[in-house]
Amino acid sequence: MEIQEILNQVKSGGLSVEDAEKRIKSRSFEEMGYAKLDMNRKARTGFAEVIYCSGKTDEHLLNIFKKLYEEEGEVFGTRATPEQYAFIKKHYSESEYDPLSHIIKIEKSGKKKIGKIAVCTAGTADIPVAEEAAQTAEYFGAYVERTYDVGVSGIHRLFSRLDKIQDANCVVAVAGMEGALASVLGGLVEVPVIAVPTSIGYGASMKGLSALLTMINSCANGIAVVNIDNGYGAGYIATQINRLGVRE
Amino acid sequence: MEIQEILNQVKSGGLSVEDAEKRIKSRSFEEMGYAKLDMNRKARTGFAEVIYCSGKTDEHLLNIFKKLYEEEGEVFGTRATPEQYAFIKKHYSESEYDPLSHIIKIEKSGKKKIGKIAVCTAGTADIPVAEEAAQTAEYFGAYVERTYDVGVSGIHRLFSRLDKIQDANCVVAVAGMEGALASVLGGLVEVPVIAVPTSIGYGASMKGLSALLTMINSCANGIAVVNIDNGYGAGYIATQINRLGVRE
Amino acid sequence: MEIQEILNQVKSGGLSVEDAEKRIKSRSFEEMGYAKLDMNRKARTGFAEVIYCSGKTDEHLLNIFKKLYEEEGEVFGTRATPEQYAFIKKHYSESEYDPLSHIIKIEKSGKKKIGKIAVCTAGTADIPVAEEAAQTAEYFGAYVERTYDVGVSGIHRLFSRLDKIQDANCVVAVAGMEGALASVLGGLVEVPVIAVPTSIGYGASMKGLSALLTMINSCANGIAVVNIDNGYGAGYIATQINRLGVRE
Amino acid sequence: MEIQEILNQVKSGGLSVEDAEKRIKSRSFEEMGYAKLDMNRKARTGFAEVIYCSGKTDEHLLNIFKKLYEEEGEVFGTRATPEQYAFIKKHYSESEYDPLSHIIKIEKSGKKKIGKIAVCTAGTADIPVAEEAAQTAEYFGAYVERTYDVGVSGIHRLFSRLDKIQDANCVVAVAGMEGALASVLGGLVEVPVIAVPTSIGYGASMKGLSALLTMINSCANGIAVVNIDNGYGAGYIATQINRLGVRE
Amino acid sequence: MEIQEILNQVKSGGLSVEDAEKRIKSRSFEEMGYAKLDMNRKARTGFAEVIYCSGKTDEHLLNIFKKLYEEEGEVFGTRATPEQYAFIKKHYSESEYDPLSHIIKIEKSGKKKIGKIAVCTAGTADIPVAEEAAQTAEYFGAYVERTYDVGVSGIHRLFSRLDKIQDANCVVAVAGMEGALASVLGGLVEVPVIAVPTSIGYGASMKGLSALLTMINSCANGIAVVNIDNGYGAGYIATQINRLGVRE
Amino acid sequence: MEIQEILNQVKSGGLSVEDAEKRIKSRSFEEMGYAKLDMNRKARTGFAEVIYCSGKTDEHLLNIFKKLYEEEGEVFGTRATPEQYAFIKKHYSESEYDPLSHIIKIEKSGKKKIGKIAVCTAGTADIPVAEEAAQTAEYFGAYVERTYDVGVSGIHRLFSRLDKIQDANCVVAVAGMEGALASVLGGLVEVPVIAVPTSIGYGASMKGLSALLTMINSCANGIAVVNIDNGYGAGYIATQINRLGVRE
Amino acid sequence: MEIQEILNQVKSGGLSVEDAEKRIKSRSFEEMGYAKLDMNRKARTGFAEVIYCSGKTDEHLLNIFKKLYEEEGEVFGTRATPEQYAFIKKHYSESEYDPLSHIIKIEKSGKKKIGKIAVCTAGTADIPVAEEAAQTAEYFGAYVERTYDVGVSGIHRLFSRLDKIQDANCVVAVAGMEGALASVLGGLVEVPVIAVPTSIGYGASMKGLSALLTMINSCANGIAVVNIDNGYGAGYIATQINRLGVRE
Amino acid sequence: MEIQEILNQVKSGGLSVEDAEKRIKSRSFEEMGYAKLDMNRKARTGFAEVIYCSGKTDEHLLNIFKKLYEEEGEVFGTRATPEQYAFIKKHYSESEYDPLSHIIKIEKSGKKKIGKIAVCTAGTADIPVAEEAAQTAEYFGAYVERTYDVGVSGIHRLFSRLDKIQDANCVVAVAGMEGALASVLGGLVEVPVIAVPTSIGYGASMKGLSALLTMINSCANGIAVVNIDNGYGAGYIATQINRLGVRE
Repeated sequence: MEIQEILNQVKSGGLSVEDAEKRIKSRSFEEMGYAKLDMNRKARTGFAEVIYCSGKTDEHLLNIFKKLYEEEGEVFGTRATPEQYAFIKKHYSESEYDPLSHIIKIEKSGKKKIGKIAVCTAGTADIPVAEEAAQTAEYFGAYVERTYDVGVSGIHRLFSRLDKIQDANCVVAVAGMEGALASVLGGLVEVPVIAVPTSIGYGASMKGLSALLTMINSCANGIAVVNIDNGYGAGYIATQINRLGVRE
Repeated sequence: MEIQEILNQVKSGGLSVEDAEKRIKSRSFEEMGYAKLDMNRKARTGFAEVIYCSGKTDEHLLNIFKKLYEEEGEVFGTRATPEQYAFIKKHYSESEYDPLSHIIKIEKSGKKKIGKIAVCTAGTADIPVAEEAAQTAEYFGAYVERTYDVGVSGIHRLFSRLDKIQDANCVVAVAGMEGALASVLGGLVEVPVIAVPTSIGYGASMKGLSALLTMINSCANGIAVVNIDNGYGAGYIATQINRLGVRE
Repeated sequence: MEIQEILNQVKSGGLSVEDAEKRIKSRSFEEMGYAKLDMNRKARTGFAEVIYCSGKTDEHLLNIFKKLYEEEGEVFGTRATPEQYAFIKKHYSESEYDPLSHIIKIEKSGKKKIGKIAVCTAGTADIPVAEEAAQTAEYFGAYVERTYDVGVSGIHRLFSRLDKIQDANCVVAVAGMEGALASVLGGLVEVPVIAVPTSIGYGASMKGLSALLTMINSCANGIAVVNIDNGYGAGYIATQINRLGVRE
Repeated sequence: MEIQEILNQVKSGGLSVEDAEKRIKSRSFEEMGYAKLDMNRKARTGFAEVIYCSGKTDEHLLNIFKKLYEEEGEVFGTRATPEQYAFIKKHYSESEYDPLSHIIKIEKSGKKKIGKIAVCTAGTADIPVAEEAAQTAEYFGAYVERTYDVGVSGIHRLFSRLDKIQDANCVVAVAGMEGALASVLGGLVEVPVIAVPTSIGYGASMKGLSALLTMINSCANGIAVVNIDNGYGAGYIATQINRLGVRE
Repeated sequence: MEIQEILNQVKSGGLSVEDAEKRIKSRSFEEMGYAKLDMNRKARTGFAEVIYCSGKTDEHLLNIFKKLYEEEGEVFGTRATPEQYAFIKKHYSESEYDPLSHIIKIEKSGKKKIGKIAVCTAGTADIPVAEEAAQTAEYFGAYVERTYDVGVSGIHRLFSRLDKIQDANCVVAVAGMEGALASVLGGLVEVPVIAVPTSIGYGASMKGLSALLTMINSCANGIAVVNIDNGYGAGYIATQINRLGVRE
Repeated sequence: MEIQEILNQVKSGGLSVEDAEKRIKSRSFEEMGYAKLDMNRKARTGFAEVIYCSGKTDEHLLNIFKKLYEEEGEVFGTRATPEQYAFIKKHYSESEYDPLSHIIKIEKSGKKKIGKIAVCTAGTADIPVAEEAAQTAEYFGAYVERTYDVGVSGIHRLFSRLDKIQDANCVVAVAGMEGALASVLGGLVEVPVIAVPTSIGYGASMKGLSALLTMINSCANGIAVVNIDNGYGAGYIATQINRLGVRE
Repeated sequence: MEIQEILNQVKSGGLSVEDAEKRIKSRSFEEMGYAKLDMNRKARTGFAEVIYCSGKTDEHLLNIFKKLYEEEGEVFGTRATPEQYAFIKKHYSESEYDPLSHIIKIEKSGKKKIGKIAVCTAGTADIPVAEEAAQTAEYFGAYVERTYDVGVSGIHRLFSRLDKIQDANCVVAVAGMEGALASVLGGLVEVPVIAVPTSIGYGASMKGLSALLTMINSCANGIAVVNIDNGYGAGYIATQINRLGVRE
Repeated sequence: MEIQEILNQVKSGGLSVEDAEKRIKSRSFEEMGYAKLDMNRKARTGFAEVIYCSGKTDEHLLNIFKKLYEEEGEVFGTRATPEQYAFIKKHYSESEYDPLSHIIKIEKSGKKKIGKIAVCTAGTADIPVAEEAAQTAEYFGAYVERTYDVGVSGIHRLFSRLDKIQDANCVVAVAGMEGALASVLGGLVEVPVIAVPTSIGYGASMKGLSALLTMINSCANGIAVVNIDNGYGAGYIATQINRLGVRE
């Protein structure tokens, strides 16, 4: 019995208040349409669902792609292989693929980009992760300023472009190897810095763990860290922060 | 408004079904007395709450002690220091303390002990952790058989007492250093073995991490592992398993 | 001389009691058919032997497969490759293969499934490990309830299916990445939770070590952990626990 | 020569344009009062300097305390010992000390608290770190809502207080042991979650490293992590985020 | 029934051969006096039991001390504190204590020392561990040649004493910090080298783990490694090897 | 406005001194041609830029190659694959490739090699890393003396060639496995030793981490360490040191 | 000048004693034919050199193979690939290859095998490493007794073959996963146990590190450990020990 | 027989050339006064021996102190406690102690300080390690320029003092927490940077391991690393480098 029906029966006297209370309290969580946990993702968070393509079979990927596209009129997938794109392309010729960030998408045109997120990298090898962050933020409606290859080994490059970074609502600092960029940025801006360690490096970089530790131990204020190579996660939280900073 | 009141108003026509449904769906989780998450711990799990004494101030400890004692008529605390006991003793002269297991308690007399849990240790230094496990299980109503100092460096000691271990519903294997006891037991009994690594050892034992790894990698079947020195956790899950094995 | 023969000679006076005692005490372990260590696996544990296919050559695998099939009339292998299945299939056309769990088997029909084990996963990527656990338990005669993709990032999915989980004798919680599912389940059920970390994840997940640590450190009661991706081990110990809970 | 003087000489013809340009370009960084790097901390970031008291000698601490108090009319120190407070108290009787968070301060009265930050803990043992975060944010002008002891082992406690958490601009999730709280919160709110692992736990918790790994690997969106026990850092970045969300 | 009695009854016809066989096969392990596992330690291994004093209470230590002394007429304890010695001394005035190696003992006079074990250290700080090894070996009857402070940072010191090392039956190489001594010795002698990493060092020495890794990865032949600071273990296995090398 | 123009306007009275000062102080970092951070790499450090070829696409590599060649008249790339070389070769037939060190280059002839750097390896498998170091140093103008395969397991090989090592300005010690060579060299020479751990080894060598730890913990004086397999880095800093030691 | 010549000149009066002493003392290490470091490996250690084939080019391998064969009349290589064997086979048709142990060799016939080394494995997957150990020992002249697949999960298999293990001069214990076999053997034999961890396992076995830690932390006496998968190293030191135990 | 005596006998005909050669070649290493390994430390390296005071008993320390003072007329000890100083002071009233660096010394007056070493720290807490480095270098005769508290979280402080750093022969970069200072310095100077990680930090700094990893993975050129807190080691190698850079 639906709640409505229970209530109708209470109203009509077909069900006692006691029985009605018991039935209501014992029913399943979902069925209750429980307000606080209403999980229509987009309604709740303002973010549509995204596909993590890595490891998915072609058919599985296509099904999710189709379902999301139908729901949203656009769709966004991370960590897609060129092979996955070739397959999707056959069904959705309007889909696009960026071989650098490994993002596959169909995006509505004319989306407004609000606020400003600055995405910075230490080296050129960090750009794929940075692009995953930047394009994620753009897909979710943020304006993104890219500042790449400004690592600490040539710190003048960073300073010469500081203007464009300092007026963002949030900075995403992407760096591998020793990951010092996040600390330097943390000392130069007044907004939150989301640090993304990358797996770029060799030897004692331990596939990004060293950069992760550097960033977690930063002596600068206003820095928080996401997982190694997690451009998507950085783009997501940066978008959340950026939205807060936009006066509409 | 309580649900009952809402229903009464529906019944009396003072509230439309639509409004009633909305109100019911929007109310707080707890208020709903939500059946599946009813958190009266003992009713739900059959286990009364236990105090983790470590780090608690005397006053804080006393308050919890008092509250639980009043609710249950008995009370059980792990990792208590002699100083904590001295303090509690002043207020509860009937409280007891075991300096080996660091357990403080007031226990109802005449509790029935059901089934059988075998608690084994590799060395004598592992006994404090084993006693935490054993006394936890006993407090929760299990019959416990202790078999201590039967580590693999003198494996005949284990074999000579195997009879008493093999007919338990669950075996708790407590071992530090290299922790091989769990694997040997796993190969000799047909019931679940809960493995407890201890921090006994030095050098590369890394305070129990080495024993933990040994146990997690065991080549024997029927072994699962709890945290280092977590006698309480082992006693708890062993009690859960033992209960299943008792035909009442 | 067999023991029987020794005894016959004692009876007939052909051997002194002293000599007989000496002979009996000096003979080999196995020869004694030593009761407590009688290693007929199935008789002792109620579990037939299972094949760990990974790394075995085709011929080696086939020989074991054949031997076990002849002994038991059914056979069960984990971590088999499609290539291994293709080879076995040529000899045993009745063999089946599940590409998800990588299980190869010939199973007797009409086996009774007793009790209930709930196997849950955090994500869809954890399903292969969960299926290894579930099918292992089913092969050993347990009834299994699957509840997949109920990870903590969308916890309403778990709550909506909690009914089916809470009445199991044992819960298997399979999760990669941060592995928080086990803790949440441990707080919601009253039976033992066997936690299986998976190698799903990237970066600081360190191929499952992070999930393993999460589960070992769980603040919830009633949780014990097996090795990363060890679905078989979880299915095995869950079956042991489930059997205890079945009143026959 | 000051820049002004150089310019005056250029104006008066006492210095050629070429020489003036050379002199300007060769002078020291600081002397230039370089705009973008102007390091008057408060002017730049809106945050006054804070004292990290740990390990400082009494005299050293007093000097910094004095200097900051004179500059700002208030002062805030983290990780102070009771002994340090006793010493400061002798010189500044108006100073206050919170033995829980180990914060020492003299705070201006009547400060306006804007926005809302929700600070949550998994257990009671995590409260000292949470208070460092909360009081830091309050000192910097944020309104803070505390929700303590809502860890995943009793998840109903969290749900019953979700209302108060969901309307914050930023959530700080403080947890030790397995640290699963951050993931659960990440799945329930639509604002950034700053996760703070604590060193609470034992054995394989490795003084907070396990909780740190859990949080970094979270499968939920919108989570970023600071160092173990770094309540101050979390309070700082949460304040930055909260400010963005306040429409003035 | 004892085996002898069973046999007597078989002889007298009071027991059938079938029943006798069954009874014999079902009895306990120990009772059988099972030859191969006869665990009279000294008879089996030639080594009397030794006391690991660390962490033992005074009374517990005294009891073991007394028992072993009565059995053997001598007794040997490792890792004893001066306080433990003071206590034992009151009961056994003939006991001796070496504050360097932390060994307490009563040793029979006139024991013959056979063969030769060379015990070498890299630095003077490694001597306590080396002495534990050396005195253990001496107590078990080996002749020991000490060569201390011959680490690789001044390798001429090692070469000038190589004569005395090269004719031993076994070399014990004790080193902390980077632990390179074992590799150098392995390249210079033709007998087994037992390497003992010590916890001497700081920073990245990680309490001996670094030296342990160095020794395990040695590029020289004929090296095997024991636990960090495990002088006793090295002395024990060196004694086993030395005995093999002695022609009596 | 350029600084020159500002000054001209000041001179001509078109701009007040106050306005001029303000404009000068607010302009961008780069534009200032800021003396201390003038980043013309070669002018500043005496080292031309080098290409890290690993992971670069053919086109990307060719562009950098071309640019550097045009600027310097020579070019030097590390970690190039044979495939990359084949591609470059098509455009620059004068380019050379060393399959051992994976260095690709076009080098001016007749370069003077100054001073002396001794590059040593423990084994033959370490030579590729050593050659990266040696050829880097040579490209930057240092004279290099190679002494390979002189590891500690056969230390006489090292001693027989010590003459040639001891008169260098800097020693580069390249070793994998247990990495003891650096310590031994540190005890035998009076100049700085740059230690390069290599990933040569297996098992507990952990891809060079063990050698890295050995070298960092060295008990010898005058040793500093670079990353695993970082021959280029060692060659670079050795060149810096060597230059200091050359009296011109 | 050779020493002989110097002495001749002293004798003939052509050189003063002072000058002669000076010349002798200043000459190179090697030239001195320095007795103690005479590095004719076989003369010194009784072990001919062996080839570590892994990673060597065909030509390089062939050259070493040829040189050693000419010197010794036999040759022994470890970790050879089938491809390397195919290449060697073309030049040395009498060469043999064992695909299990990856050993390539030409061995003199009729070699006497002395003493006894027991090589044991926990599982069948550990056999390749065990064979490397066993065949190495056999090549160096030891008699080897193999006892495979006697791991602790079915400990009766070990006991039934204990006779053959207990009379060896040295036991080699080869085990992956949790590596408990070494501890059990250490408690059952009176001779040195050389423990070899293998990389067999998955998940938290961390490619053998877990087994290595187990073995290093063993609570049994008389155990020392070599690197992961280092069958050759174990075979070498076992041979050294075995030789000591043989009375000729 | 001494070499001289052997030569005299050869001269007098009392010894044949053959016998003399044999005797010379067989004698001990030290006795030969072997030129290349002559270990008079100061003569060889130009550095007098230094005392590592940590862990030494008062008497032991006094003896070494006395011996070195007599040999050199000055003496230098690192990591001395105030208690050790109080003891030494009683015997050597002219000794001095620096409670910051924990250095105890008697130093000759009027020593010339040559060249220039720049010692920099990230924070004030790093100063004790920096002072150990600086005072070590000064004791060995280098001129030292200190630049403290110039970490990357306020990078303008570093830039304002860059002049004084850039003209040194060697830079010592001392930093804890995330250790990014070394990378930034490496990008700004043209001389070698010796990086010293410190144990300053908490949580994931893991007592300096995180800073060590940062420095080892630095993307800047010209950086090499010493052990955590190893100020002495950095001061030593910096002195070696500085000497090379001084034209006398």
